[in-house]
Amino acid sequence: MFPLRQVIATVRYTTPAFRSMSASTGPLIDLAVDNDGIATLTMQRPPVNSLNLELLDALGKALDDVSKNKSRGVVLTSSSPTVFSAGLDIMEMYKPDIKRVETFWTTLQEVWLKLFGSNYPTAAAINGHAPAGGCLLSMSCEYRAMVTGKYNIGLNETALGIVAPKWFMDTMCNTISKREAEYALTTARMFNTDEALKVGLIDVLATDKSDAVDKCKKFIKKFDKISPIARALTKQKIRAEPLTWLIKNRKQDTDEFLTFVQNPKVQQSLELYIQALKQKSAK
Amino acid sequence: MFPLRQVIATVRYTTPAFRSMSASTGPLIDLAVDNDGIATLTMQRPPVNSLNLELLDALGKALDDVSKNKSRGVVLTSSSPTVFSAGLDIMEMYKPDIKRVETFWTTLQEVWLKLFGSNYPTAAAINGHAPAGGCLLSMSCEYRAMVTGKYNIGLNETALGIVAPKWFMDTMCNTISKREAEYALTTARMFNTDEALKVGLIDVLATDKSDAVDKCKKFIKKFDKISPIARALTKQKIRAEPLTWLIKNRKQDTDEFLTFVQNPKVQQSLELYIQALKQKSAK
Amino acid sequence: MFPLRQVIATVRYTTPAFRSMSASTGPLIDLAVDNDGIATLTMQRPPVNSLNLELLDALGKALDDVSKNKSRGVVLTSSSPTVFSAGLDIMEMYKPDIKRVETFWTTLQEVWLKLFGSNYPTAAAINGHAPAGGCLLSMSCEYRAMVTGKYNIGLNETALGIVAPKWFMDTMCNTISKREAEYALTTARMFNTDEALKVGLIDVLATDKSDAVDKCKKFIKKFDKISPIARALTKQKIRAEPLTWLIKNRKQDTDEFLTFVQNPKVQQSLELYIQALKQKSAK
Repeated sequence: MFPLRQVIATVRYTTPAFRSMSASTGPLIDLAVDNDGIATLTMQRPPVNSLNLELLDALGKALDDVSKNKSRGVVLTSSSPTVFSAGLDIMEMYKPDIKRVETFWTTLQEVWLKLFGSNYPTAAAINGHAPAGGCLLSMSCEYRAMVTGKYNIGLNETALGIVAPKWFMDTMCNTISKREAEYALTTARMFNTDEALKVGLIDVLATDKSDAVDKCKKFIKKFDKISPIARALTKQKIRAEPLTWLIKNRKQDTDEFLTFVQNPKVQQSLELYIQALKQKSAK
Repeated sequence: MFPLRQVIATVRYTTPAFRSMSASTGPLIDLAVDNDGIATLTMQRPPVNSLNLELLDALGKALDDVSKNKSRGVVLTSSSPTVFSAGLDIMEMYKPDIKRVETFWTTLQEVWLKLFGSNYPTAAAINGHAPAGGCLLSMSCEYRAMVTGKYNIGLNETALGIVAPKWFMDTMCNTISKREAEYALTTARMFNTDEALKVGLIDVLATDKSDAVDKCKKFIKKFDKISPIARALTKQKIRAEPLTWLIKNRKQDTDEFLTFVQNPKVQQSLELYIQALKQKSAK
Repeated sequence: MFPLRQVIATVRYTTPAFRSMSASTGPLIDLAVDNDGIATLTMQRPPVNSLNLELLDALGKALDDVSKNKSRGVVLTSSSPTVFSAGLDIMEMYKPDIKRVETFWTTLQEVWLKLFGSNYPTAAAINGHAPAGGCLLSMSCEYRAMVTGKYNIGLNETALGIVAPKWFMDTMCNTISKREAEYALTTARMFNTDEALKVGLIDVLATDKSDAVDKCKKFIKKFDKISPIARALTKQKIRAEPLTWLIKNRKQDTDEFLTFVQNPKVQQSLELYIQALKQKSAK
């Protein structure tokens, strides 16, 4: 299912995630509110913000804090100099404890429901690579500023032998055209920043992280003259279809994921994959 | 809910509507059929074609006339030199008579069902500003020519503390991309003519009203060689989803609107809003 | 229903189809697999690959062969130097044997379900005109390379007094924007290659048939590093809505078509149409 060449091709995103399993120290999310009342959430699970249960849980809690404290909006960014988020942590899926992996998945669903359906404005300051789950997080926001350069963004699940869930696809179709989404999803397309801008996967280029955060804040300040309640209801109404789908189908979506990770062939593939990563690391 | 600064920002569209409450004389819609059998419907409720019950009712009746007399198509335009339509008349919502405001809303629904789902070709010659309900009317047509210049168009309901109903949103998503629609609806974006052309909110620029009407007629003449029945069924089939939604949910949609206008906070906001308009008028 | 002028306007696509009724010799589909395991299906029903029952049946069987033999993908093209496919064969609809015309329609449905929902990658090398059903076949693939030049492509059913079925429309909306699809479907728009490229109806221009086939194969080779199962499930998930619709509504869709072809007015129109073709042929 995973030919080695494709494993090698994706190593650059996932190697650090594998290495980092025991390196977690300090808070996984930094929440800072500026004088204008805009919250910046910085993912800081070195080295590449692989989304494991703990990081997702911390992200969900931070979004709750923002909601309770009525921040004017949220900018989501990363403490890594080169990676926004490497996506879901493969190690959550390898030889999983079923109870934990189920919580992992339902926590991912909750984070998405909170972020994609939030009352407050959201923007992603994408200061590095954003494959798979990293791309999903940024697309769940309402605006995306990405640092120009060698970084890539996309839902490249098929390159890892994974089928993106329907709500990942819906999130992409909320951002770019159906045609572009189909092409990108089937070919595991990673867009460079120019390509991403052209199809609308990102909204604006930034020179560096600071510029990206500033542009996100400028977007959020667009809502100064807008009734917050009308804004929130409008956003939730236009995003209602994907939100309603997941709310209605959470159990089925979780079951599909659990079936997937318990498939012996998937576990074999992950085994091969992780061995390849170890060999690469050893060099 | 309506900070004063946003009230001031939107005064340019709504002041005249407020003033015009007692100024209505003559037919509210002029219906003229040219030698080619194309009907031009001109909204003429000075000064800015605010959509009150009487104007909507006259528009609905004019659409029925067109339908009965089998015109080749309809061009919708305005007698105002600067405004296509300022949108729904705020005065219909302020201290409303419940019976009248319910009729107001159901009449708006009927006009939309007739226009968006019409058998005959429809085009809007947008010869001035087209905010909110004005934008909705133009998007319900099949083609839009807009006079170049300082005019703006968009669904800016959130700037007035209003949530556009689902069928307003669906009408916008029938015209521009989901992404552009979400951004425009949440930020209350008013597009200038170049921006509107770029995202596809309008189809072509015109030098003046006469040129806009001509371009609309040229569009309608494209159907000379097309079977009218096949054309009508094709249009209604591709527009079926939003049409069916409103037909199935008219009662619920009306109830939502009635709840909204009877909310004391909404009435307070309208009060403040109208006072601000009066102060502005008095200067 | 069919004014003569529109009949004449469409003669260039359909005349040869009419003439060819008794000219069929040899296999209607050529299936050739190259050294890379990519299958090329060449429609060869001279002169213009009008889609009659036999051609559709042969195409369906060829798609089954590809599926069984696990080809890496399919390139669909034409043996005609100027026409990809002229669309559905009018003669299947004229004075039809009800049993045969029903099989004709259900076979068309099956071919679409196989092609639009295939496991394997699909691409169309469009080496000539592709009106109506010809356009449908190409849009059902995942990629389109079209030979630059005087060729046109589009769903021009309304020009023939026909309403494209919902799944034709859905297939177009999977490829281009809703707005472009509505405009194209109602106006019977035939896009030249530059226009088709601009709206995304095709993906790339080709200098000739050989170049078109090469570009299609290059697209299919993009999947070399992608898990075939993940790819297939991803494609089928993003295309699920139109596929599910037809599967659930096949009977109703067939009944609508049978009612249409048995309508005396439709038969009168076809009669006039075919007479016009004969007169044109006689000149």
